[in-house]
Amino acid sequence: MSFLSTQPYKGTRDFLPEEMSIRTQIFEKLFHTAELFGFRRYDGPILESAAIYEAKSGEEIVNQQMYRLTDKGGRELALRPEMTPSVARIVAGHQNEIVFPARWYTHVNCHRYERPQRGRVREHWQLNVDIFGSEELTAEIEIFDLVGALLTALGASPSMYVIRVNDRILIDAALTNYVGVSQEKLGVASKLIDRWEKMDQETRHEAAAELGFSNSQVDRLEMLVRFDLESYCVAAGKEVTSKSRVAKIIREGLSTAPLHFDPVIIRAFDYYTSTIFEVFDRSPENRRSLFGGGRYDNLAGLFTDRRIPGIGFGMGDVTTWNFLEHNGLLPKPDLGPDVFVFATNGEYDAAARRVVRSLRDAGIRTAPALDNPPIKGGLRLADRLGARYTVIIGENEHASNSVSLKNMATSVQITIPESDVVRMVKDGFE
Amino acid sequence: MSFLSTQPYKGTRDFLPEEMSIRTQIFEKLFHTAELFGFRRYDGPILESAAIYEAKSGEEIVNQQMYRLTDKGGRELALRPEMTPSVARIVAGHQNEIVFPARWYTHVNCHRYERPQRGRVREHWQLNVDIFGSEELTAEIEIFDLVGALLTALGASPSMYVIRVNDRILIDAALTNYVGVSQEKLGVASKLIDRWEKMDQETRHEAAAELGFSNSQVDRLEMLVRFDLESYCVAAGKEVTSKSRVAKIIREGLSTAPLHFDPVIIRAFDYYTSTIFEVFDRSPENRRSLFGGGRYDNLAGLFTDRRIPGIGFGMGDVTTWNFLEHNGLLPKPDLGPDVFVFATNGEYDAAARRVVRSLRDAGIRTAPALDNPPIKGGLRLADRLGARYTVIIGENEHASNSVSLKNMATSVQITIPESDVVRMVKDGFE
Repeated sequence: MSFLSTQPYKGTRDFLPEEMSIRTQIFEKLFHTAELFGFRRYDGPILESAAIYEAKSGEEIVNQQMYRLTDKGGRELALRPEMTPSVARIVAGHQNEIVFPARWYTHVNCHRYERPQRGRVREHWQLNVDIFGSEELTAEIEIFDLVGALLTALGASPSMYVIRVNDRILIDAALTNYVGVSQEKLGVASKLIDRWEKMDQETRHEAAAELGFSNSQVDRLEMLVRFDLESYCVAAGKEVTSKSRVAKIIREGLSTAPLHFDPVIIRAFDYYTSTIFEVFDRSPENRRSLFGGGRYDNLAGLFTDRRIPGIGFGMGDVTTWNFLEHNGLLPKPDLGPDVFVFATNGEYDAAARRVVRSLRDAGIRTAPALDNPPIKGGLRLADRLGARYTVIIGENEHASNSVSLKNMATSVQITIPESDVVRMVKDGFE
Repeated sequence: MSFLSTQPYKGTRDFLPEEMSIRTQIFEKLFHTAELFGFRRYDGPILESAAIYEAKSGEEIVNQQMYRLTDKGGRELALRPEMTPSVARIVAGHQNEIVFPARWYTHVNCHRYERPQRGRVREHWQLNVDIFGSEELTAEIEIFDLVGALLTALGASPSMYVIRVNDRILIDAALTNYVGVSQEKLGVASKLIDRWEKMDQETRHEAAAELGFSNSQVDRLEMLVRFDLESYCVAAGKEVTSKSRVAKIIREGLSTAPLHFDPVIIRAFDYYTSTIFEVFDRSPENRRSLFGGGRYDNLAGLFTDRRIPGIGFGMGDVTTWNFLEHNGLLPKPDLGPDVFVFATNGEYDAAARRVVRSLRDAGIRTAPALDNPPIKGGLRLADRLGARYTVIIGENEHASNSVSLKNMATSVQITIPESDVVRMVKDGFE
């Protein structure tokens, strides 16, 4: 007989309890922090109409990475590759009930058809956070502060990461005024900058020439990507700078998070209109982008003529896990049970069940053996499960109407009346 | 300009924060209870090889309800319609690391192409629970006790529901010995019983005749489906009865949950081999199946030659929600923020941000206004958000280096130093 493969589908992952406990602890800290910031959790379906991505999610996602399917009614569907179009749809659909500005978060998995490699999988889990209905820079401050608080909640210090920020209105103005890029070429110029750090000088000059940029324009691009905020603002011009939330927040130190202006941060999503940011690990071995986001003022425009600006980000599990691991911050698995219970003989099962039920009623994670192992075998199983205490009901215990309770860490074992088990486990003993 | 629809894909649901808060509270109670029973959470991918369902998930699921897609590498995939084949795959793949018996739970969404109607959706969320590696009836007792504890955790009393149980080894023996069904026809006879309650007498007699059952066999079937446990055991025979975990558990009252033997409980999944059960709402307006499960001794056999028996169930969000609603047990939404903070003028924003940050540092869910509303507008927004307290920093407060704190339920408002806000919110005042 031939067996089916036990491997998960390529690029997806099984989470065994040890790994799942870590993932759950990470996300629960994130949820708790988002709620401290007044965000409310929502959820949406994994299957969406493909059309909601086709307009604004960017060519790579739509043409190369999206899982598509057609249902029996002929509907063109996609497994969501990202959450922002879904939440824009939901918010647009409920615009008359929602209190704006609205702070929303969710925990979703997204699918992208990628070549699996370190940090890239086909199904990943993310925290997705958005503020809808505000164009005030306070929304940016809240989002930046939240990014800092989320990483703090995971144990990170501000020296471990940096939030690299940019502003598409500054970029467009600087490309126009300083580099002399025409309106039609702003998009390709941005995409070139997006790949800037991944190319050596020769390659990027070739790429720029292919796109029709002159040598002097390329020289100016080389300058521009090295500018600090003040030079960049000069290049963009005063009027645009006065509208840049990013410029004001950095200049006046309005966020508590470690922000750093960076001209090469572009973000590949076509829907971002102004503030964009990406969080980077600062450790030398892992200088990777952790996650990012930005402001999208027109995304709900696919669904409604009401203008509903938004700003948000998605924080994925894979890069976050790598970041925590590199910095020694990964939580330890917290697996039950606290107490393992066994009877050495089926005749004592009723007593074992009473003990199990009273422990659970007292809020203590408890698992009984399902058979009747000998004492050594029962203790070995308790040990392998990582139980903190073991309740043993053997011949002697049964004869004396008592149970033995063993502290698995210290190996101290006491024999006590059945009715004392809950108290002894709660109080502990050495 | 034409807009895209804001509706979710047919049969799927958006969860706005109010609904999501209810769903989250329900599932958190379920997770907590599963952990009290020593179960450990795991997770697996939504995309699976279609082959893992084709062997054992039952014809309706595989041929009619499964969402299929083919990836660019030609792999035949399915959106998981149920969790059991996935977990059998994962357990088989890690059989050498896993400590058996293993208690595992997960929280997953499953997709089935169904005609949307009350209680039936195309994407639903479920708690899935399994014990692997035990053929002892203690595993059944644990599963039944857990079902009872889960419903108790949601506020249900045992009078509100019943666990209808059956045993496929009893069914097969009774069909063979009492009804005289041949080995080859056991499957179709079971499927007939599965539909028994949905047909009137004439329809089921026609259906039975079409399947080749004689009149006297049909008469015996009519008797059989009305048998109580003792009559059923007589029909099945002593030897088989002695092997039935269900018979022993019910006769000896070994579970704390409200069990009721019921010959028409069949469960449509082909992989169940022995114990099967289904939980029903007892209220007259909602006599629906809530969820069910059973024992499957051969499912891991698709993946390994090691025998890994299992027993488990999946508890879906839609039927659970309906049950709770009918019984007045639905939790109330718990939405933040606890405190809403606003400054009436941008010049006081720095003070507002200090208050916001100190409240959050103290673990209080806090949202600031993102602009500077007048006092009335700020209070109206706080009220619409459902904040318990509002911090107001207006001209007078700013001039006196203080803030106003309003209890939104009692409308009592006090003016206090900025540094007292956290304490006053924590202690409360009337």
